[in-house]
Amino acid sequence: MTTYNEYYHKKTGLTVGVKNVLFSEQSEYQKVEVLETDTWGNMMTIDGMVMLSEKDEFVYHEMLSHVGLFSHPKPERVLIVGGGDGGTAREVLRHDSVVQVDLVEIDEVVVRASKRFLPEVGDWQNPRLNVLFEDGIQFVNGVKLPYDVIIIDGSDPVGPAQGLFEHNFLRSCHNALAEDGVLVAQTESPWVKSYHSSIKNIFTALDAMFEVSKMYLAYIPLYPAGMWSFSFGSKGVDPLTGDTVRRVEKGVRQFGERLKYYNKDVHIGSFALPNFVQDIIS
Amino acid sequence: MTTYNEYYHKKTGLTVGVKNVLFSEQSEYQKVEVLETDTWGNMMTIDGMVMLSEKDEFVYHEMLSHVGLFSHPKPERVLIVGGGDGGTAREVLRHDSVVQVDLVEIDEVVVRASKRFLPEVGDWQNPRLNVLFEDGIQFVNGVKLPYDVIIIDGSDPVGPAQGLFEHNFLRSCHNALAEDGVLVAQTESPWVKSYHSSIKNIFTALDAMFEVSKMYLAYIPLYPAGMWSFSFGSKGVDPLTGDTVRRVEKGVRQFGERLKYYNKDVHIGSFALPNFVQDIIS
Repeated sequence: MTTYNEYYHKKTGLTVGVKNVLFSEQSEYQKVEVLETDTWGNMMTIDGMVMLSEKDEFVYHEMLSHVGLFSHPKPERVLIVGGGDGGTAREVLRHDSVVQVDLVEIDEVVVRASKRFLPEVGDWQNPRLNVLFEDGIQFVNGVKLPYDVIIIDGSDPVGPAQGLFEHNFLRSCHNALAEDGVLVAQTESPWVKSYHSSIKNIFTALDAMFEVSKMYLAYIPLYPAGMWSFSFGSKGVDPLTGDTVRRVEKGVRQFGERLKYYNKDVHIGSFALPNFVQDIIS
Repeated sequence: MTTYNEYYHKKTGLTVGVKNVLFSEQSEYQKVEVLETDTWGNMMTIDGMVMLSEKDEFVYHEMLSHVGLFSHPKPERVLIVGGGDGGTAREVLRHDSVVQVDLVEIDEVVVRASKRFLPEVGDWQNPRLNVLFEDGIQFVNGVKLPYDVIIIDGSDPVGPAQGLFEHNFLRSCHNALAEDGVLVAQTESPWVKSYHSSIKNIFTALDAMFEVSKMYLAYIPLYPAGMWSFSFGSKGVDPLTGDTVRRVEKGVRQFGERLKYYNKDVHIGSFALPNFVQDIIS
């Protein structure tokens, strides 16, 4: 058995046993691989960074989707920028109010590899899902009919996803959102010093643009140091008011056992930021 | 530079760059090492498992100490079982109400190595600290004057710390607690399947013995998968009532910048358990 190693600072990082390389392709944008691992089922990496595994993807996808979707009173039109593995769309599509999900992924190789080697992650046959292989930044600039929720589900702020962390793109997202719109973005690990400036930039931009801006966290074992941050911005709704929490409570009851991470307490508790995390964004 | 590798399931685990081995001694009980790392300052391992590093120890020690201490209305006498690195005692001693801390560590080698190579972790000169090199299990059986708070700060449930996860020991702790006593124990990573039975056993035992029993979590980057659990038991006080939260709020204000992780929101939010964690203990 070989091992996959990913370092987030010098020689500190993650090691995972690898049984087989199932897929490896250099796309126009990045190197996409799927590895069969010893512990996590099949695992996708992009440019040597873990994106997801079959065993832990529920955390990232539930937390990236439901916090924003339940915070909106009635999300109908949802845009996912990135998210080519299909997991975020799968969770979004569980919300009955959702009429249309546009998934804009720049790299068709990610979708192809996911459909073949991570088939349980996506809900690709769902008629409410509309997959477009386009540059998310250009797509957002051209949006005519506004979205209720936009989810930024890109990879790390190096390579093709770098623009997703920039002020102009966030401004375009703000413009592409309806009056009570909600934006959620994955914003890296607070334990990784080299990401602090990206985290601060994106959060500061959201804070300046949106009526409500907050950060929340989740435990993701295959991401650097096991702690991941998400940034939330909205034109009005607050994820922690009584109205929102009642919606969460009702929704969680309806979703039942399909949820493996997210629940009402987690929705609220994930916004509790340790002091050292607050220091990054303040 | 060499690397330190610790696997929690097959070949899945942590890798850390090591500049130097500063200390390595096989004690009567276990192998104690201190490594100079590339990212985390000096790091102590016991029998090949990371105990703490200079850069991340604040999370574990703040969360193991303050959740229990602030939940008690006036903690004066505190017992720490294990905790030979001194970090838990340091945090406990920050509480002005505390008159005496008995730290009962079975292995003097741990304390010796910590004083020399992790000197900022302990508050060894504090006159309220009483260090005893004894078997914690025997010590607790012989307690005459009850404690307000008992903290179980042992290593993993293999080797000398195994007994700290057993029903009889927890029963002795219950007997050694005063009327409004609080017990807090470190209870491993919920991501590690091989620990699930230990976690369930200790939590079930606490639940049967104590009036209030709850689990809480913290993000610890050098522990398996970055997620760590703690179990809380008390003879009456609840960590989440208004009275407790007001004490937390006041205490956090007094502690000021000495706290790098713990705050009121974290105190409350750490008790939010993802569904898969609830499933382990229910």
